[in-house]
This record gives sequence, structure tokens and C-alpha cells, in this order.
Amino acid sequence: MRLALLQMNSTPGDVADNLQHIADAAEQAAHSSADCLIVPELAVPGYGAGDDFARLAEPADGPQVRRLQSIAAHTGLTVIAGYAEAADGVVYNAAMAITGDGPVANYRKAHLYGDYERDHFAPGNAAPVLFDVGGLKAGLLICYDVEFPETVRYLAAHGADLVLVPTALPRGRFGSFIAAKTVPARAFENQVFVAYANHAGPDGRFDYAGLSCVIAPDGTELARADAESGTLLLADIDRSAYGEAEAANPYLADRRTDIFTG
Amino acid sequence: MRLALLQMNSTPGDVADNLQHIADAAEQAAHSSADCLIVPELAVPGYGAGDDFARLAEPADGPQVRRLQSIAAHTGLTVIAGYAEAADGVVYNAAMAITGDGPVANYRKAHLYGDYERDHFAPGNAAPVLFDVGGLKAGLLICYDVEFPETVRYLAAHGADLVLVPTALPRGRFGSFIAAKTVPARAFENQVFVAYANHAGPDGRFDYAGLSCVIAPDGTELARADAESGTLLLADIDRSAYGEAEAANPYLADRRTDIFTG
Repeated sequence: MRLALLQMNSTPGDVADNLQHIADAAEQAAHSSADCLIVPELAVPGYGAGDDFARLAEPADGPQVRRLQSIAAHTGLTVIAGYAEAADGVVYNAAMAITGDGPVANYRKAHLYGDYERDHFAPGNAAPVLFDVGGLKAGLLICYDVEFPETVRYLAAHGADLVLVPTALPRGRFGSFIAAKTVPARAFENQVFVAYANHAGPDGRFDYAGLSCVIAPDGTELARADAESGTLLLADIDRSAYGEAEAANPYLADRRTDIFTG
Repeated sequence: MRLALLQMNSTPGDVADNLQHIADAAEQAAHSSADCLIVPELAVPGYGAGDDFARLAEPADGPQVRRLQSIAAHTGLTVIAGYAEAADGVVYNAAMAITGDGPVANYRKAHLYGDYERDHFAPGNAAPVLFDVGGLKAGLLICYDVEFPETVRYLAAHGADLVLVPTALPRGRFGSFIAAKTVPARAFENQVFVAYANHAGPDGRFDYAGLSCVIAPDGTELARADAESGTLLLADIDRSAYGEAEAANPYLADRRTDIFTG
């Protein structure tokens, strides 16, 4: 399975421009024989849209998601993209995985980060569901979610091979640590692939860390973007190549959940 | 609180030599105004002692631990050292925290790694208890234990400031990853200090990775040994210096244990 990852810098509030950027990346990814494309957190409205989220939010079957479906149909990709979802009378910070045939998973960020997110979004209250992409079982998380070891553990324990994480990680020493150490640790400690798709550069409200990456179960960085620029990463996801690492690090089998709980 | 960490290379089976090595390091640590000294996993019998563990194992009030107590009494340190504990008719891979007044915590490794450990030890079946060292709450783990996020999470959720980890991490790409990324990630994701005390170099049976370290709650490496040599690290453990990191990364408060369980 070949994965494409778009490190981008969405324009806050310019949905048409952001969707076109995603469509262009999907064309390029399909040309490179990718099976799926992941783009960052809130890529469609822009993470920095602030008070515009309420206006820009749409239901999971609204025009934004239908456009993602048409991109998926046109390219043959599974597309994973962050958007603001209007549902239940509130707005969720959500990510959709969609093919040409329609949605395969929709996930609402459970761990909201700080006042900015709590002011604009309601937290999701359900764990992500697994879905198939290129013969692998995949699960969605969003940004801050992946910094909690419980989330990737949950997905791995439920059979995930691959965790797909749209993110909007800010530049700074904490962001650098998370991209360089926390995210690779999540892959290694669960022996799964992790794809972490960030924005890069300033959008007028925030400045993002870039450093998007695709990590293998043995901790290898299959792909790593720089801290500055929009770019399309490609990585081949071959679970069978990591048998030695899985045998040497059987974390799921060796857990002592009888002792270390809560 | 000043912590001393001895990266050593125990001689398998030579308990007297290993205890003398610990006593010498304690003298040096006390001379540098340390409050505690941590030494590696199975430092007393040597991690590579193999079939000799059964013969070298002693109860928690045996001569080896009494010698550790006398070292602690002589130097004023709290000493944390790995030993083979004879109890319940079996042998545990254990770590003792002891002062001149006697034991303050004894922990038996819960996650045994691979056939070598399973052939020679019974697994511990109790979580570590917290103890006070220099005004901080500390908890013990041993080597493979710390690679499981559940363990440090457990200690942090129960109030630990500092996690003390005698280890015997082998040289190789997995060992390098664990020392460089997993261990720092554990500190950061729980906003606690982690001290990780390894052996370095070959002992005739295994070859150890060195790279012992002391990590701060913000992920900073307060001290890091090289991959080759025995050395004494020192680090000042000041919880109040990390308020900014704790405010920016409130992982314990923001957990969604209602969703991500098991």
C-alpha cells in the first residue's frame, strides 16, 4: 500500500482554495501510484479560521465532503481530510476517510487542545472505528489525540495496522519534541505504522511546525518533511517487512493489564 | 534534589565486586552532594549471571541488601539497585530503594523480556508503590516495564514526580530507539522525571547499549551517558522549573479515559 501525505498550509476561511489544493495533491499522489492521501487537521476550513468555524462547518454529507468524494472518485484514492463537522447542534473538529463510493470512517477529535479549540468545538465522545485501506486496517486520530498513549494503544489492541493522524502542531520546542519523539514512540510501542500530516508555516493566527512524517512499526522514519514547506510525502506501507521488529518487541502480547490500569 | 546515576557494567556472578563498584559510586555521588543513587538492573549479581541467579538470589533482608543499606547509611544517600530476590520459593528480578534506616520500596519486574528472563525469574504481580526521595514522590520500574506506556502512566496518575528505572538495555537499533525516543516520550507524556540507568559494554553474554539518561518533564535530557563507558551522571531534579511545560501539556488532566480503555 502506498500512502501519500500532504504537508500543507491551509488558508483560513478559503474553503474553495483549500479543497483545490487537496485536489491537486490527490492528482499528484495518484500519478505516483498512491492508494490513499492524508491531509492535515481542519485542512478544509483552515485550522486558523477561528470564529468562522461556525459558519464554515458542514454536515458529514455536505458539499465539502461531497467534493472530497469526487476527488477520491476521480483519483481512485482513499482521501483522509480534516474538516469542521456540523452535527448535533454543535461543531466538531472532525476527520473524514472517504473513497469514490462514499465515507468509510468519520472521527471527531476527542482530546481538544486549549482554549482555542474548546471555544470553537465540542469534543467527540466515541473511539475511532477501524476501516480498510489497501488491505490494511486503519484508524483515525487528530493531533493532540495521538499524544496520549491510550489512543494508539486502543487502536492497536483493536487490530489497527496503521494510524492516520491529521494534525496542526505548532512550531516550538514542544512541537519539535512531539514530532521527533512522541509520534515515533507511538508507532514503536504498538508496532504499527503512524502517518502524521501537519501544516507548515504561518497562517496569520498560528505558526505550524511542519515535520510531517510516516513512521514504521520499528520506529524507522519512512518519510519526514522539513519544518517550513508544503510538500507531498510518499511511503510504502508493507506490514510483512517488520516481522523481526514485531518478534523482538511484542508489546501488545506482553502487556500486564492486570496490574497497570488507570 | 540531586540525583546520581551509575552507568556500569556488572561482572556476572561477582557480587562482591559489583557491590564494591556501587559503594565507590555512592562515595563519589555523596561527594557531589547527591541525594540518591540509581544503578542498573540486576547490578548486584550481574545481568548476565544466567544459571547463577538461583544461587545468587537472596531475600530482601539478606546480606546483599544489608550491604546496600550500609552503603546508604555511610553516604546518606537513598540507593536504588537491581538484585535477584529470593522469595515465595522463586526468584524475582527486583529493585530495592533503601536508606540508612532500611528499605523504602521493593519492586519486582512485572514485564519479563524474552526467554532468558522467563527462564530465570518469576514475574512480579504488583504495581510499584510510591516512596519519598528528597521531597519528591518516586516509583520504581525495571527495564522492559518502562517501554509500556501503561506503567509510567500508572505511576504519574498516582502522583509520581520521578520514575527510577534500573535497566539492562542491549545494544542494537531497537535499544538505540528506546533510549533516544521511548524513554524521553514517557517523561514528556506524563510530565514527570525519568532516570534510566543502564549497563554499558559486553559482559561475556550480552552487550549493553549504555545511553543512560535523566529526562525532565519537558523532554529535556538533563544528563545522557555515551554508549560505551561506565560513568556517573548527575542531574538536579527541580519540579518547580517545569511549570510552563506542565501548563502547555496537561496530559493527565486531559485524558479521555471514558473512551480509550483497554
